[in-house]
Amino acid sequence: MAEWTDPMSEADRKQASVDLLGLLAYAELTAFERLAVDASLAPNLVDKAALGAMAVAEFGHYEVLHERLASIGVEPTAAMTPFVGPLDAFHDSTTPADWLESLVKAYVGDGFAADFYREVAELMDEATRSLVGDVLDDTGHAEFAVAHVRSAIEADPAVAGRLALWARRLVGEALVQAQRVAVDRDSLARLIVGGAGDLTAVGELLARLTHRHGERMEVLGLHA
Amino acid sequence: MAEWTDPMSEADRKQASVDLLGLLAYAELTAFERLAVDASLAPNLVDKAALGAMAVAEFGHYEVLHERLASIGVEPTAAMTPFVGPLDAFHDSTTPADWLESLVKAYVGDGFAADFYREVAELMDEATRSLVGDVLDDTGHAEFAVAHVRSAIEADPAVAGRLALWARRLVGEALVQAQRVAVDRDSLARLIVGGAGDLTAVGELLARLTHRHGERMEVLGLHA
Repeated sequence: MAEWTDPMSEADRKQASVDLLGLLAYAELTAFERLAVDASLAPNLVDKAALGAMAVAEFGHYEVLHERLASIGVEPTAAMTPFVGPLDAFHDSTTPADWLESLVKAYVGDGFAADFYREVAELMDEATRSLVGDVLDDTGHAEFAVAHVRSAIEADPAVAGRLALWARRLVGEALVQAQRVAVDRDSLARLIVGGAGDLTAVGELLARLTHRHGERMEVLGLHA
Repeated sequence: MAEWTDPMSEADRKQASVDLLGLLAYAELTAFERLAVDASLAPNLVDKAALGAMAVAEFGHYEVLHERLASIGVEPTAAMTPFVGPLDAFHDSTTPADWLESLVKAYVGDGFAADFYREVAELMDEATRSLVGDVLDDTGHAEFAVAHVRSAIEADPAVAGRLALWARRLVGEALVQAQRVAVDRDSLARLIVGGAGDLTAVGELLARLTHRHGERMEVLGLHA
């Protein structure tokens, strides 16, 4: 195994971008499933249909990533497979207990992940960067989650404490799985460390992610 | 309440067609949700993506029905609401215990329902009839279910008995809920009885539905 700071070959760079696309494709597929499940738990038909439409949009993103992988000669299932374990483990360890927790997960968890994907895409070729930007376009879920969580807290301020703890757990579990991916996927990890320059720069990347996480918590009316 | 065989006014006929569109819209929304849940339980990424695509197609059908209702000046949520209870009760009483049961439910249950919707649509105006035909177009789910169930029976013939019992229960529960809808929705029931001519003709309609059900069971390799 190469050192994280060794120069990367073209093949290494391609592998890193295939990894990011595979990771994102599986993330979109699971986002679709979770939104559809949230739709089935929605308290009324209007929310149900709104969540259903967002789920469909996420599936559209999955299809875009699937097509891109196929078009660069990569078997999409093979590209997704390494990330099934970590993403499933993340979702299994953060199953929302109720509708509010699932909204916080959607906004805080997906927001954190999206920021991370964007940062990584910045280190890649223009085609990958622009595709990743497109599929991370918000499907309206953020606004939906914020509106519902804020009005729930307004109706019962006591829920804010529980949701803040929940959000902290989400980020913790996400970091555990990100670490696991970094250990397993050499090219991706090297791209991030090499792209950032050194481990200090990785710390700065984490600081940016944490800062934006704090902003989202504030929008929800929660203490980070 | 009018007798079932009284002549129907234009308003009665419109109510019956709004009822059918509302019933179908909610049925498509729940089909979307069930397929998405099946996708999340799929044994591999290829099946997962295939079921996801079918779920998305069902949501598209829901949107078509939603638009039609809105375009004829009916609040779609209001049109769906009377059918939430019966459809949810049907699905709650027929939660598949595993992946195979969910496939049989998709093919046998949805097939039975689709036949019924088509028969009812035959009694309506051309615009409704053609829209219903479009949204009942199979999304590839039938073929998918048949292929998977047949190969499961081939691998282990003992599952055929359990799945046959399950299919019988599905039809039984569907008839219980159809009865409930008939009692609640006067216009729809009168259209069916009046359209068929008399109760003998309703018996014939049931015979046609049962016959086609038997054909589907045979395709799966199950005793009806």
